[in-house]
Amino acid sequence: MSETIGFIGLGLLGLPMATNLLNAGYSLHVYNRTASKADPLVAQGAQLASRPADTVTSGGIVASIVWDDAALESIVMSEGFLERLGPGGIHIAMSTVLPETSRKLAAIHAKDGCVYVEAPIFGRPEAAVAHQLWIPFAGPQQAKERVRPLLEAMGAQGIFDFGPEVGAATLVKLVGNFLIGSAVYSMREALSMAEKNGVDPKAVIDMLTQTLLNAPIYQSYGKRIAEAVTAGQTTVFQSKIPLKDTGLFEKTAQQVDSPTPIASLLHNLMNSDA
Amino acid sequence: MSETIGFIGLGLLGLPMATNLLNAGYSLHVYNRTASKADPLVAQGAQLASRPADTVTSGGIVASIVWDDAALESIVMSEGFLERLGPGGIHIAMSTVLPETSRKLAAIHAKDGCVYVEAPIFGRPEAAVAHQLWIPFAGPQQAKERVRPLLEAMGAQGIFDFGPEVGAATLVKLVGNFLIGSAVYSMREALSMAEKNGVDPKAVIDMLTQTLLNAPIYQSYGKRIAEAVTAGQTTVFQSKIPLKDTGLFEKTAQQVDSPTPIASLLHNLMNSDA
Repeated sequence: MSETIGFIGLGLLGLPMATNLLNAGYSLHVYNRTASKADPLVAQGAQLASRPADTVTSGGIVASIVWDDAALESIVMSEGFLERLGPGGIHIAMSTVLPETSRKLAAIHAKDGCVYVEAPIFGRPEAAVAHQLWIPFAGPQQAKERVRPLLEAMGAQGIFDFGPEVGAATLVKLVGNFLIGSAVYSMREALSMAEKNGVDPKAVIDMLTQTLLNAPIYQSYGKRIAEAVTAGQTTVFQSKIPLKDTGLFEKTAQQVDSPTPIASLLHNLMNSDA
Repeated sequence: MSETIGFIGLGLLGLPMATNLLNAGYSLHVYNRTASKADPLVAQGAQLASRPADTVTSGGIVASIVWDDAALESIVMSEGFLERLGPGGIHIAMSTVLPETSRKLAAIHAKDGCVYVEAPIFGRPEAAVAHQLWIPFAGPQQAKERVRPLLEAMGAQGIFDFGPEVGAATLVKLVGNFLIGSAVYSMREALSMAEKNGVDPKAVIDMLTQTLLNAPIYQSYGKRIAEAVTAGQTTVFQSKIPLKDTGLFEKTAQQVDSPTPIASLLHNLMNSDA
């Protein structure tokens, strides 16, 4: 378990996932644009790199989880990154990006003899800490087998294989985030309506999330939305991630002429909130 | 258990619910606009009435489950119905209607000394057969206590008390149907997009309904939608009920100036399908 792993991106999800790797006994070389975010990891023995390529071991594994397509591309194209990773090396890309970006980057990795595995993450930071992440992944079979124990160590409670071609796991992630966004905005619309009609939003969502909608997403967001609506607040997402990801969903659909009436409306609602 | 109950409305849900009552040992006087739908119940010993009032026992209990507000009002206002129900009588109204209609009808019942309890039904016909209905109810406490064992006999697996004022249980039903409609149309939009991107809709929904969206609604509709999308079909609801109920949701929201961007879009999408 003393294998050295590169880890790039120490945001709200990346930090607890990297911490889990350290706790599981892996050695880490970490990089983050704002270096100070690595402090807690360095205190636990991780080595801080000053550029992405310096996290990479030849033929080894490097994981990245960054804000968007552009940030991911800039890492892949940064000086020395792919050359160093080289033949046998694997990049686990865990950011939420366009399937098209995944396919493009996989081809670029192949030129240097290394492998791109996409493994976007479902779960909030608390879920990473509690080892309750859900992870769809796609890429060449052998690489996935090598990657699986690492994803488990990072905090996966379940890993779902979407085949050898990258793009599919990223698409599942966009679909999941879209369905969550739709559920959350629908709950806000419905519970606001209940409250204005003099019916307690908490009683409404309590019944529904014990019965037909007894999924964790409805239970956790429903409770927060009922409280927000009762308090007269209207913003449901604090983060800008849903807005970004809805845009990715729309773009992915538009590329194949698939209509997005609901995603487009959600995009507008999220923009009004932002 | 030889109490005689009136039962009005033998549609897709009413028929199995009335059958459950017979099986539980109740005597039934039944009425349906199209009388022949009562045949299977009559064969099991139910008595067929030629008008709503003839199902009613003075001071007894009559249950109704009909298509819409207008059908419900026409029963309540039909000759002899309320007079016969009279003091101590209870009408269990199980149709999905406007909260406003519930409140209006409760006041009309009170004039004849009888009680209106609203108890709209969550569940498909199969769920009625399997005793897996979820029922929110509202109305005067004593009447609800008298009604509860009947709802259990009709097929409730869970009953949720929304207080003494009618309108709240009906509102919960509208909210639940709206959230289902939103989930279903969002799944269609997302799985169509997956399919056009060359990703198997079944694999996508399988993962999501095993993880973040592990509620029966997503599982049962998701499976059907994935199959429909793969087969090139686009219509998701065979029934006109979702269209009607979305209209009721919008009207209930508009009466209190609560915005309905998602419900209005769903209404349009359902209309395009109809």
